[in-house]
Amino acid sequence: MNTQQIADFFRERDRLAVHLGIELLEVSEGRSVARMKITDCHLNGVDVGHGGAIFTLADLAFAACSNSHGTVAVAVNISISYLRPAREGDLLTATAEEVSMSPKISTCLITVTNQAGDKVALFQGMAYRKKDPLESVIA
Amino acid sequence: MNTQQIADFFRERDRLAVHLGIELLEVSEGRSVARMKITDCHLNGVDVGHGGAIFTLADLAFAACSNSHGTVAVAVNISISYLRPAREGDLLTATAEEVSMSPKISTCLITVTNQAGDKVALFQGMAYRKKDPLESVIA
Amino acid sequence: MNTQQIADFFRERDRLAVHLGIELLEVSEGRSVARMKITDCHLNGVDVGHGGAIFTLADLAFAACSNSHGTVAVAVNISISYLRPAREGDLLTATAEEVSMSPKISTCLITVTNQAGDKVALFQGMAYRKKDPLESVIA
Amino acid sequence: MNTQQIADFFRERDRLAVHLGIELLEVSEGRSVARMKITDCHLNGVDVGHGGAIFTLADLAFAACSNSHGTVAVAVNISISYLRPAREGDLLTATAEEVSMSPKISTCLITVTNQAGDKVALFQGMAYRKKDPLESVIA
Repeated sequence: MNTQQIADFFRERDRLAVHLGIELLEVSEGRSVARMKITDCHLNGVDVGHGGAIFTLADLAFAACSNSHGTVAVAVNISISYLRPAREGDLLTATAEEVSMSPKISTCLITVTNQAGDKVALFQGMAYRKKDPLESVIA
Repeated sequence: MNTQQIADFFRERDRLAVHLGIELLEVSEGRSVARMKITDCHLNGVDVGHGGAIFTLADLAFAACSNSHGTVAVAVNISISYLRPAREGDLLTATAEEVSMSPKISTCLITVTNQAGDKVALFQGMAYRKKDPLESVIA
Repeated sequence: MNTQQIADFFRERDRLAVHLGIELLEVSEGRSVARMKITDCHLNGVDVGHGGAIFTLADLAFAACSNSHGTVAVAVNISISYLRPAREGDLLTATAEEVSMSPKISTCLITVTNQAGDKVALFQGMAYRKKDPLESVIA
Repeated sequence: MNTQQIADFFRERDRLAVHLGIELLEVSEGRSVARMKITDCHLNGVDVGHGGAIFTLADLAFAACSNSHGTVAVAVNISISYLRPAREGDLLTATAEEVSMSPKISTCLITVTNQAGDKVALFQGMAYRKKDPLESVIA
């Protein structure tokens, strides 16, 4: 798979991203960008963007980035810091960069910003890299 | 608000939890339990339970637990480790315990298990405690 | 190596633990306990126990715990929350428990308490498990 | 205190940093750099640079960075990923950048590199900002 096919793989197959209206904008080796507009279904009990929605946006970018070499990588640990609340109507962009890659481990840093360019969250993810090509998942 | 009212607060107002079919089973001071059955909308690109769905389940338990004293607490940092994949049909339970509470900071540990009792994820969350009573959020 | 030999391995060979006066009290499969008394050399700029000293205490317990099966496991990610300051003279105990173990990954939770039993820090560690026996390290 | 005085504050008062041979090279608002050469006392049981030593190097840079505005900030949560082993003789540099600052919370990202410029560790730290000026600590 090339990175265009990898992007399509996630766009078509990631059911939670579809359910939450998350768009995967671009994928290249060791990099990806995803976007989500905060709507009513993304709010938490106190009417701000739910940590779980912001996490899922960043997590899709993380998955696309850590799988961008064409082999399956699975998330094992993530740390997320919330820097600023997101409000209904905000357009959030998650930009993932692979900071380090060994044969077994990929480490990515994902920054989530709002439409004003303010940082909303910082997400540090570690994935375990398998040897299986991504297409092997599709039976 | 007593803990029963706090539970109802989250059940009625947390839009993302409703959207993902997450049930808040119980809340007491410094403790809470939530549950989610993995269905198609919770899957990721490789057909296992999405990290974002499991995170959101644990995050609802975390919110209920860190807000269980009746004042608003907002998540500032979370670290989650994924221990075992969750499959479609699995029934996941998140149990939150407040490990430590100071006037400003609440630290909770949330364990997510499947129907067999196997640990699926471990979630360590830190929330900043405001002085505002939870009911002040509802205008 | 049995767990007694593993304990001795760390006691003799972990130079930083020796340099900081950290004692490894016990090791069994999936569990370990270490201890450190806060002295002047463990203080930070504002005269409380340094985050790095408390981290190192917990990290030794983590290493002993994740290596307790006799094969080498190396730390890949750790999240630590500081719950309460430690003062000069405090006696800190780090208790490690392996929460989950797969062929490749060990996840441990380490709780650091002071002499009054108050929780000082919570440390969640993930290690990558190699196949090499621990004794292979010693040439 | 200006940033020069803040740098001197940590150089003179951080006992653990002195004990481990960590140098604070520079501090400016929202930024700092520290350095440590890996010697025998920094090694772990398997003869590589101890996670606790690398953490402490990054933690000093974090403390200087989050305190660089002249008021006390205390670490509440840190996540560290280890990307590559450090060996005896390696010269490690930790560069801290404040990613976000609110009246209550400072979030910093610290990258640790070796003499070849390879990334050794990624450290994401969150500190609670008090109102006390740093000089108030010195009685």
